[in-house]
Amino acid sequence: MWPALFTPRAVALIGSVGEGKLGYHLLRQMVDGGFPPARLAVVNPKGQGALGVVGYPSVAETGLPVDLAVVVTPAATVPAVLEECAQAGVRAAVVITAGFSEMGNVAGEEAIREVVRRTGIRVVGPNCAGIVNTHHALFPTLETRPPAGSVSLMAQSGAVGGVFLAWAKEHGLGIAKFISYGNGADLNERDFLEYLAEDPETQVVALYIEEVTEGRAFMRALAACARRKPVVVIKAGRTEAGRRATLSHTGSMAGADAVYDAALRQCGALRVASLEEMFDLCLGFTALPPVRGRRVVIVTNSGGPGVLSADRAEEVGLTVAEPSPALRERLSAFLPPYCGLSNPIDLTVEGTEEGYRRTLAAVLEEYDAAVALNIAPAYLDSVPLARGVVDAARESGKPVAAAFLPGPIVAEAVRYLRAQGIPNFATGERAVAALARLADYYAQRDARVIGPGAEGAVAPEGGPQGSLPDSLLEPDLMAWLRENGIPVPEFRTARSADEAVAAARAIGYPVVMKVISPQILHKSEWGGVLLGIADDGAVRAGFERLARVAAGVDFRGVVIYPLVQGAQEVLVGLFRDPQFGPVVAFGAGGIYTELLRDVALRVAPVDRAEAEAMIRETRAYALLAGARGRPPGDLNALADLIAQVSYLPFLYPEIAEMDLNPVFVLPQGVLVGDVRLIPQKNHHTADSSDSPDSSDSSDSSDSSDSSDSL
Amino acid sequence: MWPALFTPRAVALIGSVGEGKLGYHLLRQMVDGGFPPARLAVVNPKGQGALGVVGYPSVAETGLPVDLAVVVTPAATVPAVLEECAQAGVRAAVVITAGFSEMGNVAGEEAIREVVRRTGIRVVGPNCAGIVNTHHALFPTLETRPPAGSVSLMAQSGAVGGVFLAWAKEHGLGIAKFISYGNGADLNERDFLEYLAEDPETQVVALYIEEVTEGRAFMRALAACARRKPVVVIKAGRTEAGRRATLSHTGSMAGADAVYDAALRQCGALRVASLEEMFDLCLGFTALPPVRGRRVVIVTNSGGPGVLSADRAEEVGLTVAEPSPALRERLSAFLPPYCGLSNPIDLTVEGTEEGYRRTLAAVLEEYDAAVALNIAPAYLDSVPLARGVVDAARESGKPVAAAFLPGPIVAEAVRYLRAQGIPNFATGERAVAALARLADYYAQRDARVIGPGAEGAVAPEGGPQGSLPDSLLEPDLMAWLRENGIPVPEFRTARSADEAVAAARAIGYPVVMKVISPQILHKSEWGGVLLGIADDGAVRAGFERLARVAAGVDFRGVVIYPLVQGAQEVLVGLFRDPQFGPVVAFGAGGIYTELLRDVALRVAPVDRAEAEAMIRETRAYALLAGARGRPPGDLNALADLIAQVSYLPFLYPEIAEMDLNPVFVLPQGVLVGDVRLIPQKNHHTADSSDSPDSSDSSDSSDSSDSSDSL
Repeated sequence: MWPALFTPRAVALIGSVGEGKLGYHLLRQMVDGGFPPARLAVVNPKGQGALGVVGYPSVAETGLPVDLAVVVTPAATVPAVLEECAQAGVRAAVVITAGFSEMGNVAGEEAIREVVRRTGIRVVGPNCAGIVNTHHALFPTLETRPPAGSVSLMAQSGAVGGVFLAWAKEHGLGIAKFISYGNGADLNERDFLEYLAEDPETQVVALYIEEVTEGRAFMRALAACARRKPVVVIKAGRTEAGRRATLSHTGSMAGADAVYDAALRQCGALRVASLEEMFDLCLGFTALPPVRGRRVVIVTNSGGPGVLSADRAEEVGLTVAEPSPALRERLSAFLPPYCGLSNPIDLTVEGTEEGYRRTLAAVLEEYDAAVALNIAPAYLDSVPLARGVVDAARESGKPVAAAFLPGPIVAEAVRYLRAQGIPNFATGERAVAALARLADYYAQRDARVIGPGAEGAVAPEGGPQGSLPDSLLEPDLMAWLRENGIPVPEFRTARSADEAVAAARAIGYPVVMKVISPQILHKSEWGGVLLGIADDGAVRAGFERLARVAAGVDFRGVVIYPLVQGAQEVLVGLFRDPQFGPVVAFGAGGIYTELLRDVALRVAPVDRAEAEAMIRETRAYALLAGARGRPPGDLNALADLIAQVSYLPFLYPEIAEMDLNPVFVLPQGVLVGDVRLIPQKNHHTADSSDSPDSSDSSDSSDSSDSSDSL
Repeated sequence: MWPALFTPRAVALIGSVGEGKLGYHLLRQMVDGGFPPARLAVVNPKGQGALGVVGYPSVAETGLPVDLAVVVTPAATVPAVLEECAQAGVRAAVVITAGFSEMGNVAGEEAIREVVRRTGIRVVGPNCAGIVNTHHALFPTLETRPPAGSVSLMAQSGAVGGVFLAWAKEHGLGIAKFISYGNGADLNERDFLEYLAEDPETQVVALYIEEVTEGRAFMRALAACARRKPVVVIKAGRTEAGRRATLSHTGSMAGADAVYDAALRQCGALRVASLEEMFDLCLGFTALPPVRGRRVVIVTNSGGPGVLSADRAEEVGLTVAEPSPALRERLSAFLPPYCGLSNPIDLTVEGTEEGYRRTLAAVLEEYDAAVALNIAPAYLDSVPLARGVVDAARESGKPVAAAFLPGPIVAEAVRYLRAQGIPNFATGERAVAALARLADYYAQRDARVIGPGAEGAVAPEGGPQGSLPDSLLEPDLMAWLRENGIPVPEFRTARSADEAVAAARAIGYPVVMKVISPQILHKSEWGGVLLGIADDGAVRAGFERLARVAAGVDFRGVVIYPLVQGAQEVLVGLFRDPQFGPVVAFGAGGIYTELLRDVALRVAPVDRAEAEAMIRETRAYALLAGARGRPPGDLNALADLIAQVSYLPFLYPEIAEMDLNPVFVLPQGVLVGDVRLIPQKNHHTADSSDSPDSSDSSDSSDSSDSSDSL
């Protein structure tokens, strides 16, 4: 089907081509784009053609090997049109027509799918802005016809594609394929990702999405594509309105967008926030050799814009290092004395072709990449400067990003740069921002181990192996965690003061005592947690106190732990995302975790390397690792714990959400300090929706209780 | 001097005007810009003119009332040229010539200043790109000649001005004055701020600076200007390299740039990070009515770009609220059923002139501002849509920002928008970002109380009143703080165990005991701090322990405090910035304060309202205010403390840096927990540069000692 769609032998436009109609505009695009008119046909009841393309009353009558139909007939007619096309041997269709599920006409869209299933014809759209294959002169789209090149763009939104393609034309970015897939009734982003991963004409993939269905399948397709070539993604719709309603502590801290963010990164895609950034990365990937490091040099002919670029470079994580003494000496041998020899290197407005050439050639031996700035006054001819830049870039083989501006003054120089393969960015700031992302990409590309989440693994060998304990009270969950290999402290339960004393002695003082009751959800608030109990007398007094706390509710005794000292406290959690399923969360502890949303997420499961990356990406990582005189925590054991937890939802599909909070990180080993688990609604022991205050997450120290009313 | 500079009766260009020379380009700019050639003269030894402007061998011989000289002669000749100009009655000069202090020729620049002092001629430059007054057809500049309007731009960097002016021309932003002041040998940003504050042709001031001298005077000029009109500032050179070397804890946390940031905000200026943002704000301020709230509606003809704009709007703090039911009903009465009635309101690609007009008119009754997006395919005529937008904006009187794109397709519509006073932004995202800053500005403008720091107040009534205690040991500093009205806990010192017991009894158990010794800089590391001492025996044991800690060093006994419980800990600090002098810092406590640089700064002194603003701007403010079940701290007392501390450097000019860390914030009142003070180098009692580890700031809990070796 892909050749039919992207390299059709002949194309039929189905619909009216009266002047001013959509069909007319589409036909004009195809004709002006250079598709041979003899390989085009128009099909409509009157057999009316236009623009030199012959019209027929049916596809069958065109006498052409029509592989692709472009459909602009009214929505109600589309299924029948597709049926007729399929009968006539057409294998692919682009349905421009709107008026389907996007405005409630779900039946119409289902009718399209029905034709697809029955006849095997494949459909792009409906409600789309068409497709482009520049390398086949194929332009059945309403958007700007871009120059040919190696960037392929997929967009749910046709208009986003339109803006991107218009910029591509204006700024000379070469496009291979453009696919506006609209409602995605049949083919969707997953299919196109699979195709573009293999497409030899596509070097970089750009993807604009607002939402995906089947998150795991999407991740598989995206990860497979991203292993082959850079994939730059805009995921729009990031507002708070989309925040997930959730019961657990970690779940409530993570917005829905944060899960998309994790999923995209796990797949190795480069997420960007704006079309400009997407454009700049595509430009960088197609026009620059790999960026192999973060040391960047800025060669400029004006101070201010150089400083602004340097500021931005440091903000985005590049190093604007000073030239070495040896390099300075080399530079001072040929540069005039008024040139600044620090980075940015300011050739001043007197900077010449030879100045740019020799300076860039010299500095590129020492730096990983260069930005060549030229802020041209009207009287300056910038073409020679462009020649200097081009020659030096060619000689060095290293990435050189140009920022020649302002546009009207440097137009000719920019054309020259482009023709010689040097990308020109709108500003120096945008150039360094792109270089930083490229450096990230190349640094990670080879090292990248796509976690099992990205592979869409759903369950470890053997599938679901167990069911949750009947009781979700703290001691039962602790026992269950231990059975699953997750380190919990020694603990004992006691139903009387005597039992409690015996338990405390067995564990060894000092101990911690907590009340057990299915009705006490927030033990701390109830006064149900006693820390640092030092002797038998205190145990007896404590037991009485906890019994009083539970007076009038179902008192099930107490649970006793050793007091864990000298630990740092973190939290590890699980929740389910509607698109991606189980997600594992790690927060490096403290009230700031919540104030700052200092939480790392991954679509579960994760392996140990990915778990380590989660720990490192929190801001408080430095503290865990031993900053500020603290004893470093056992991060290996912590990573193991996170990975183990991330597999639990696959072993126990009944888990909806779980918080381990706190988890004690010790210099040797880790221990779960408390556990709270919310089962899926159909769990056999409880209906979590009945929990009176299970949605409360106002105090992390109180999130330590099972919210199940057992 | 201002009329001579900006509205000269006649202008002399001093220098060579041979073709290709700078003088030639400057003369061409002036002639092409429309300055009457009969009011122009060229002066050079040969009396050579050009471009229809007559040349003379001297200014005196021109016979014109030359108010302004534009100088492009070699650097060595400039002082003599200025002298001659002054003798001939010229009152102002723009010196384009480079080769002065920027490349080490300080003497040449001093010679210019000497002529200024002696003759009264005023100088812009040297090493500058000239000036512009569009309203006087005055264009002695090498940069693009912009259209006339009401934005005035000052830039140390001529090239930054060049980019901005080129964009102004390209995108139709009207400019009043442009001033490139280069090295600022005579007139500098302070002078121009004073002038532009009063200039009736200037509605908005844009300022690009890399550094300022005389920070307090700069603040006075900036604050005075910002009280009159919006001032948009780029302060470039934000890199880590510029971080201040400092001894104190709070000082080391704050980068030099953070002080600039505080100073600019204290003056009421709008700091931006990029030229694009500066441009957009100038466009918004000049073309939009005041933005009186944060509720923004996006009216679009395409979904994707609408979503991207909504995402960005929420990121920058606008509210993309849904329309009220009443508004939805009004809209549904005239909009086709396929239009989305949520915000963004999507008219779809079928959106018409009437659709934009009626929709915007209806929604603007409910929202504070609107963004009108039009993403145009090539076949769409966007001019009618622009008419709809213009009419609705005019009718409502509320701010409507357009984002019509892509450029080549909507060029005519954008020209129409501009001509009708509707600003068109490069993208919807940039439009909402500008609206958000404008909303900030108007919300604060009337409410704004410029703190005393902005006024450049240096000392309270009566000037410096005291000197620091001779000893800077902790108890002496605590006593000194108490004398200055700053709340410290009760404390006693003791030289023996018996004295210590008596002191502890007098204070009341439990107490805290700390070693006193000028050689023990980090008491905690030495084991010199004992917390929670509960009885006489513990005091005696503690005293012995501290005496052992101080064995071999100068042991001065112990200081005893009550144990403060139930407090939140914050820090308050002072340090000196090389540009702005005393700075007061507030950090809301905890290790994260440092990890996250969660510190609020102000150029000192601050009043209580400003101190309250400092507290609120930390991320941990919510905790201090009682979030998460904590008892709220006494923020009034805390604000009083910050304000009091901020005045200390003016009462005691010997203070270089001071940390109060921790400060205990109680439900009632605040108490300083520890103090560390570093005097200026010439302080009579100590030389802080001799302190062995005074630059150590690796542990906030240990920053509690005076670093003076007394």
